[in-house]
Amino acid sequence: MTAAYKRVALIGLGLIASSMAHAMRQFGLADEIVGHAKSAESRKIALEIGLCERVYATAAEAVQGADLVVLCVPVGAMGEIAAEIGPHLAAGATVTDVGSVKGAVVEAVAPHMPQGVHFIPGHPIAGTEHSGPRSGFATLFRNRWWLLTPLDGADRDAVARLRGLCEGMGANVDEMDVAHHDLVLAVTSHTPHLIAYTMVGVAEHMRRVSNSEVIKYSAGGFRDLTRIAASDPVMWRDVFLTNKDAVLDILGRFTEELFVLQRAIRMGDGEHLHAYFTRTRAIRRGIIEAGQDTSAPDFGRVPLGGGEGKT
Amino acid sequence: MTAAYKRVALIGLGLIASSMAHAMRQFGLADEIVGHAKSAESRKIALEIGLCERVYATAAEAVQGADLVVLCVPVGAMGEIAAEIGPHLAAGATVTDVGSVKGAVVEAVAPHMPQGVHFIPGHPIAGTEHSGPRSGFATLFRNRWWLLTPLDGADRDAVARLRGLCEGMGANVDEMDVAHHDLVLAVTSHTPHLIAYTMVGVAEHMRRVSNSEVIKYSAGGFRDLTRIAASDPVMWRDVFLTNKDAVLDILGRFTEELFVLQRAIRMGDGEHLHAYFTRTRAIRRGIIEAGQDTSAPDFGRVPLGGGEGKT
Ligand SMILES: NC(=O)c1ccc[n+]([C@@H]2O[C@H](COP(=O)([O-])OP(=O)(O)OC[C@H]3O[C@@H](n4cnc5c(N)ncnc54)[C@H](OP(=O)(O)O)[C@@H]3O)[C@@H](O)[C@H]2O)c1
Ligand SMILES: NC(=O)c1ccc[n+]([C@@H]2O[C@H](COP(=O)([O-])OP(=O)(O)OC[C@H]3O[C@@H](n4cnc5c(N)ncnc54)[C@H](OP(=O)(O)O)[C@@H]3O)[C@@H](O)[C@H]2O)c1
Repeated sequence: MTAAYKRVALIGLGLIASSMAHAMRQFGLADEIVGHAKSAESRKIALEIGLCERVYATAAEAVQGADLVVLCVPVGAMGEIAAEIGPHLAAGATVTDVGSVKGAVVEAVAPHMPQGVHFIPGHPIAGTEHSGPRSGFATLFRNRWWLLTPLDGADRDAVARLRGLCEGMGANVDEMDVAHHDLVLAVTSHTPHLIAYTMVGVAEHMRRVSNSEVIKYSAGGFRDLTRIAASDPVMWRDVFLTNKDAVLDILGRFTEELFVLQRAIRMGDGEHLHAYFTRTRAIRRGIIEAGQDTSAPDFGRVPLGGGEGKT
Repeated sequence: MTAAYKRVALIGLGLIASSMAHAMRQFGLADEIVGHAKSAESRKIALEIGLCERVYATAAEAVQGADLVVLCVPVGAMGEIAAEIGPHLAAGATVTDVGSVKGAVVEAVAPHMPQGVHFIPGHPIAGTEHSGPRSGFATLFRNRWWLLTPLDGADRDAVARLRGLCEGMGANVDEMDVAHHDLVLAVTSHTPHLIAYTMVGVAEHMRRVSNSEVIKYSAGGFRDLTRIAASDPVMWRDVFLTNKDAVLDILGRFTEELFVLQRAIRMGDGEHLHAYFTRTRAIRRGIIEAGQDTSAPDFGRVPLGGGEGKT
């Protein structure tokens, strides 16, 4: 098997980039991987742990001669990077990104892409709450979706080749249009993160309940919210600033829905609550059947303290 | 070592009761375990899988001769059971419960407790999204908190003995008063569950985003909300009906806080968002340090598809 790409340049060397580096290496998808990150520290680590053959102090240098460039920086940094690398891209190269928002990235990046370069926006629906070059692992994308949002008139061969790379790392690939992507993600990711952040903030501000109590007794449900509220602040700031319209739309619906439940609680309407909670269970079952989570209790967490749960 | 109790009667044979049965057996904490559940089906399963030595068709029969009675039914069913068992309790017996709300349980149960019986309300902060007699496992309580909320004038020996049982099953025990318990749990469990249910409901009602899309792309964050929204509808209906005041209080704060973030998004106030998201990270760290969760990425979920994550 020949590698999918000869030289891959990763711009940004955090969770997603380092996971890609591990996966491409493990599955033999790139002959050579080079990279750039903002800080000298991250570049040094990337070399040390063997993510890249070479790192460069600027993105412009890193992309030279690469047949695939992957933008793995926060969404708000994409435009600046695109402007910098535009003049240095090899003819026929593919540029993709992994940003969590697509509309804003297309707006920021597309104008800087020269003729003959294939810009194919993308987004792997996979992540953890960790970040940085040490946080990646080769199986992050396995059995996860990788959404590609090719623009009108995209080169089908270039798209097929990129799809092959994603599939090679274990992902399932779907294509959809940019605006639909941003709406779907506002529902499945962005708004859930915002409400998790909010609930964690509420807990922090309570006077009559101390922080140590919140932390000690978190296993009742709060704990799961804190995980999704623990992700990188810069990444999430950028997501909310750049997917504003879709997030505000979904937030409006969320508040409406919450007020209906709140009213049912105030009125003591047990039937309404029971019917609502019964319906939402079905969605959970759907997710397990779709292979996007484990049915093991408590996510299959190993009980703390070294024991083994009967699963 | 002598067992903590001679005969333990479990009323309700679901997740919590079956986990207690497994744990008490494994750690030699009860000479004999008997039980009662509403349905003949659950009673049959409990015998089959060896949760109880004997099961009884009524709670009144089950509690006879027991020195510990544990009420493991939904909060809304506690009063009725208490009325039924009151006249049949052995002198000197301890009655406890595991209900997620304490104020309403005390109100419903205490009036039916005869002289000489020690009623000590309790609540293990441990659970999964599964229910029924087959869902329990012996390590559910390990390294989890078990809150006891003894009433004024409670018999200290009886409390100490019950505490010993909880600790014997691996839990850490704290005591607090009933009202404070209900407020703390409204923050750490009840309100988080309600907002998770709400978000799942929003996703279900979207017209432009199909259910199958929500399910397929759930790994972006939504998935974790669905787990906590998958728990038993009856249990949660009862929690919200009986801890109404504290939940409405916290919900009010939540909505306020959410509106502030929503406004920051609308105004494009990146600094506010970044500062907020940075603060909430600290809470997550606190939970990991307190041993209430794993720091492994993605909760230490084993990647689906049989692979191994580098953790
Ligand atoms: N984490 C997730 O769950 C997830 C999932 C799917 C998609 N994404 C998307 O993937 C992208 C990267 O996320 P991540 O989780 O991998 O982030 P991360 O671990 O925080 O890494 C971000 C990387 O970008 C670099 N960077 C930031 N600004 C830069 C700039 N102006 N120039 C050059 N490099 C810069 C950082 O450099 P330093 O190391 O020097 O700071 C770091 O290496 C984001 O667009 C995010 O929306 C994330
Ligand atoms: N699940 C959690 O995460 C969690 C955590 C901490 C505390 N709790 C509390 O623990 C209690 C039990 O929860 P669980 O998760 O163990 O519930 P579960 O798995 O749904 O089991 C409930 C049990 O109660 C029985 N039951 C219900 N109504 C009854 C009645 N009127 N008379 C006799 N038996 C009756 C059921 O009988 P059938 O099997 O015949 O239907 C079932 O065996 C609740 O008060 C809950 O608030 C739950």
